[in-house]
Amino acid sequence: MPTLDLAASSPDITRAICDIPSVSDDETALADAIYEVMLAQPHLQVYRDGDTIVARTELGRAQRVAIAGHIDTVPINDNLPTRDIEIEGEPFIWGRGTVDMKSGLAVQLKLAVELTDPRVDVTWLWYDHEEVDADLNGLTRLARTRPDLFAADFAILGEPSLAGVEGGCNGNLRAIVRTKGVRSHSARSWIGENAIHGASAVLQRLTHYRAAEVNVDGLDYREGLNAVRISGGIAGNVIPDVCEVEVNYRFAPHLNGAEAEAHVRSVFEGFEVEVTDLAEGARPGLDAPLAQDFVAAVGSEPRPKYGWTDVARFSAMGVPAVNYGPGDPHLAHHDEERVSVAQIESVERGLRAWLTQR
Amino acid sequence: MPTLDLAASSPDITRAICDIPSVSDDETALADAIYEVMLAQPHLQVYRDGDTIVARTELGRAQRVAIAGHIDTVPINDNLPTRDIEIEGEPFIWGRGTVDMKSGLAVQLKLAVELTDPRVDVTWLWYDHEEVDADLNGLTRLARTRPDLFAADFAILGEPSLAGVEGGCNGNLRAIVRTKGVRSHSARSWIGENAIHGASAVLQRLTHYRAAEVNVDGLDYREGLNAVRISGGIAGNVIPDVCEVEVNYRFAPHLNGAEAEAHVRSVFEGFEVEVTDLAEGARPGLDAPLAQDFVAAVGSEPRPKYGWTDVARFSAMGVPAVNYGPGDPHLAHHDEERVSVAQIESVERGLRAWLTQR
Repeated sequence: MPTLDLAASSPDITRAICDIPSVSDDETALADAIYEVMLAQPHLQVYRDGDTIVARTELGRAQRVAIAGHIDTVPINDNLPTRDIEIEGEPFIWGRGTVDMKSGLAVQLKLAVELTDPRVDVTWLWYDHEEVDADLNGLTRLARTRPDLFAADFAILGEPSLAGVEGGCNGNLRAIVRTKGVRSHSARSWIGENAIHGASAVLQRLTHYRAAEVNVDGLDYREGLNAVRISGGIAGNVIPDVCEVEVNYRFAPHLNGAEAEAHVRSVFEGFEVEVTDLAEGARPGLDAPLAQDFVAAVGSEPRPKYGWTDVARFSAMGVPAVNYGPGDPHLAHHDEERVSVAQIESVERGLRAWLTQR
Repeated sequence: MPTLDLAASSPDITRAICDIPSVSDDETALADAIYEVMLAQPHLQVYRDGDTIVARTELGRAQRVAIAGHIDTVPINDNLPTRDIEIEGEPFIWGRGTVDMKSGLAVQLKLAVELTDPRVDVTWLWYDHEEVDADLNGLTRLARTRPDLFAADFAILGEPSLAGVEGGCNGNLRAIVRTKGVRSHSARSWIGENAIHGASAVLQRLTHYRAAEVNVDGLDYREGLNAVRISGGIAGNVIPDVCEVEVNYRFAPHLNGAEAEAHVRSVFEGFEVEVTDLAEGARPGLDAPLAQDFVAAVGSEPRPKYGWTDVARFSAMGVPAVNYGPGDPHLAHHDEERVSVAQIESVERGLRAWLTQR
């Protein structure tokens, strides 16, 4: 089993934990290493469920903050082990997971061990299966088995946010828009009715759709409605009777799930629409006192988060939550994923300062 | 091994050989049974290559006719064993293969055995793998290994033609029309360029396309241009960078392959087009003296054949060829495939009359 040296610098910890591959469903080696270190910390109470590890201080503080990060990554594509590279004179760590989100995780692991006397009680949550179906997400499991562990006055997700504070997140809806026809032999196509041709109108609505930008609690959320998959066809000589377009609607957090679904159904009125996945967004949550205090401490102008993150899960449980982590979210899942060393250090400084100020 | 009783009526032979399943790639049981019977006929010289069987008379006649049929079917879909049904008072045999084309095959097998002294020499060809890729077709193999066996003055394919004569066939072209984009995370779709949305214009051209009807040598061939498959998409959270539309162009036999390809490329001008399969059609071939004689003997007004059949193979080898078989081609590959008993008997009468008249 690999051993973690959390006395190392947070960039060094980033390198070390990226070089322990942990693609979704294969997180156990990394989870074991984290669990071993945390069990050895007298100031932490440690709980493990599968590859999700929760470490809590129990200092009797008036307030509690949840700080969370997922330990899995999307599949490796020839981009491990990590390498040190330089871009315009600045040092970066390159490789799978450096942005999403092992650099943020590295800072959290380091501070969990070092900050034995934080100003608030802290619940550290490190979880598996974030990059796959929400059903598999370690936090989904934990919310079912130990909802008490989510109790907090404020939550910080370590998702990449350019070392700034990104408030809330867009919601995420997936639906199948289905066209139907009548199957026939393609040599006598006039007997049938081509469902793929029928999908032409679906794609036209998508190409003509103009995505909105919506201001929610002072932050501008940019939406998107896109086809992410299309499939149809039985054989090379058959007029197909079904075509499916999977669409993905990323909606600003002014809409709840039902409103988002109604919007998608109205866009595709006249077609069969089956919603297959729906995760509500999260309003920024920046009006909470601890949030304002946090933003002031880290000295960053809050921005909206476009991607769905687990902040929505905390938000839905009544816990205001923000994203705060090193790395450019545009580079998440990218084959050339790389994180600025300066941003890792900045996030470490910001979190440390806020957690230790009196 | 099943044994064939070719003294039975042609409808009974149809029932018997349909009930020996012979889905493409699984024709050996039926081929074995045919081979065994033919080997026992003193008036036939029999050649076998895989599951293709060739049986020839060698009577020294001035002319030779090739009469051919495939022995495979498309997959069974709960439509075997055969059943006798009645439609508007007329008897039909229902089940996979009854139309395409074991009823035509039954007539051929029966006559091959019974007509020991035909007016022309006959080359009977029964072949495998017609319902799958042309590369696998038994006639493709035979044309490579024994092209001499195709030598004939006229050819008749037993493909379903409502017991009438269907001349020539449309050509068949398949191509991939490909759109490209730029991949990105769907939470920030404005960074990418959606290739599925790009395919909207491809589908629009298909929906606006008006297929031609073309008169060739007196017969009207109806064309068709259709999407038969569409695929695109990487994952539910990724803007896809490629979308492929497979199109199928059924073209009248006034065009050769190069002309058909040029037409498809012009329809999809501006898009990447990759031709993946191209089989030229066949002109009706009804001006050949033997063809005129045949049409007169069977007393049927010739019609065009829309579907591609192996008549094109004979046509390309300089042998005029027609389709003549029982069954409604619209029911080929249909789950409710069924053939009129009267049509089986009519084709038997027609072929028998023509082959025995002096």
